[in-house]
Amino acid sequence: MSNYPRQVSIVEVGARDGLQNEASVIELPVKLAFIDGLLRAGLKRIEAGSFVSPKWVPQMADSAAVFNSLPQNSGATFSALTPNEKGMLAAIDAGVDEVAVFAAASESFSQRNINCSIEQSLERFEPVFRLARQHNLRVRGYVSCVMGCPYEGAIRPDAVLAVSQTLLDKGCYEISLGDTIGTGTPGQTSRLLSTLLKTIPASKLAVHFHDTYGQALANILVALQHGISVIDSAAGGLGGCPYAAGASGNVATEDVVYMLNGMGIECGVDINALVAASTQIFDHLNHEPASRTMRALLAKNHNVM
Amino acid sequence: MSNYPRQVSIVEVGARDGLQNEASVIELPVKLAFIDGLLRAGLKRIEAGSFVSPKWVPQMADSAAVFNSLPQNSGATFSALTPNEKGMLAAIDAGVDEVAVFAAASESFSQRNINCSIEQSLERFEPVFRLARQHNLRVRGYVSCVMGCPYEGAIRPDAVLAVSQTLLDKGCYEISLGDTIGTGTPGQTSRLLSTLLKTIPASKLAVHFHDTYGQALANILVALQHGISVIDSAAGGLGGCPYAAGASGNVATEDVVYMLNGMGIECGVDINALVAASTQIFDHLNHEPASRTMRALLAKNHNVM
Repeated sequence: MSNYPRQVSIVEVGARDGLQNEASVIELPVKLAFIDGLLRAGLKRIEAGSFVSPKWVPQMADSAAVFNSLPQNSGATFSALTPNEKGMLAAIDAGVDEVAVFAAASESFSQRNINCSIEQSLERFEPVFRLARQHNLRVRGYVSCVMGCPYEGAIRPDAVLAVSQTLLDKGCYEISLGDTIGTGTPGQTSRLLSTLLKTIPASKLAVHFHDTYGQALANILVALQHGISVIDSAAGGLGGCPYAAGASGNVATEDVVYMLNGMGIECGVDINALVAASTQIFDHLNHEPASRTMRALLAKNHNVM
Repeated sequence: MSNYPRQVSIVEVGARDGLQNEASVIELPVKLAFIDGLLRAGLKRIEAGSFVSPKWVPQMADSAAVFNSLPQNSGATFSALTPNEKGMLAAIDAGVDEVAVFAAASESFSQRNINCSIEQSLERFEPVFRLARQHNLRVRGYVSCVMGCPYEGAIRPDAVLAVSQTLLDKGCYEISLGDTIGTGTPGQTSRLLSTLLKTIPASKLAVHFHDTYGQALANILVALQHGISVIDSAAGGLGGCPYAAGASGNVATEDVVYMLNGMGIECGVDINALVAASTQIFDHLNHEPASRTMRALLAKNHNVM
């Protein structure tokens, strides 16, 4: 039971997955100051934008400008979502360090979300993988709906394995397993990982939980017990309003870091610097942060002062 | 790792520990309707009040009236906090099913919170235990600050063991381990339980987590892995405002039940009936519920309708 990794890498997705799901569109200088704050907090893997149509995702319309303005030699890796050849060319032009593609583990979700089958979605990534090889860029694969789908309900671990294995075969170096609707619980997390780990080494897997039902940290704990050492999270719990209908923000980086610190698992993140970065970005949003640790630390510091 | 109990008993503390920490004082009929809702949801162990000075805890001033009005033969056990002989006599008079006493694992917390040493606090319970034996009432023991103290910081598992063992020796049938300030993380939970379980059987232990730093469900998961099968929680996460400074509500019963349901662990609670009970009481409070599962289910049902 204490087979925990000594070190964990956090993939900070607040600036992309988080901000993309906020109602407010954040101005470029604010976004850059936020990313700068994340760097100061010690985060080394930062998802900073996506190269998709600004018609569909207006929050990410400035991704090229973001990447053009990011610091050089920060020691961090900045990645972007690139759904197709056009996006990939723009990402390369903007100087991204790493790209990401995404596929669903649920056929219905794939059809309704991106209007094609899982297989077709994987085919569409061929030029992305080709360009990535040409430009020596690593490709991360996101698999969505690994625990459940809003249309199909529960998703079989075998279905997650199939799409994950295909993405690895095509050239992804890591698969991020996304509980998109946040319905997963620890038993399900354990069953899913047990299935995947028969074929895929733990070093190629990351977990990406949403805290819709408050289950994210318990699920992450189970993932750690299975040897997973890469965790996606968003500063302050960006992307979910604690009171909004159906809010399903990413698990908050602060909550994850607090847990890891308490367990003696290194992640290299300064939690107070992280709270400072989150506070700065939430000043520009229309709701309070979902992160309980962030709120507790702010209250504690306020009481001390 | 899958050494989970098949069944878990939930001790619903919302009507006492929860409401006691809310700014609003709830009227008797509303409180009774809330408890009725908890019964409808299938909860079998309900903490319904405390017999303490109304000067200190005005929210519990009507506890005698609450117990006098509770349904007979509901199949549930209604308990009350009884800090001393006077409170115990009032509790017996009001017809409680079970009583509870409390002691701290931290000397500084005991001194500052109840103005006496841990040992003195235990001595004060002598008449409570004596009257309990005379009236054939079971006594539950709460131990606070088991993971940390606001004045001393970390608390040694040995200190928790000592006070827990003394309470058991004096006649408690069960010890509820309280992470009063919500700072505990899974590693600490595991170390504490490993120490206690060398001497005390799992069947005599319950866990009582506060969700201040969002760690409660992860800690409960670890407790389940150690064979603990009694969990304290409060409907809707009563007792903590998601945005208040230093809010430290109990873990939400809905979040616990959602996790147990997902893991196939029986607890006998109908989650939708529970959300209905919580909704009714939160209509009388000045803030939104802290429970993520409650908010997610309400949003889902709203979208369906």
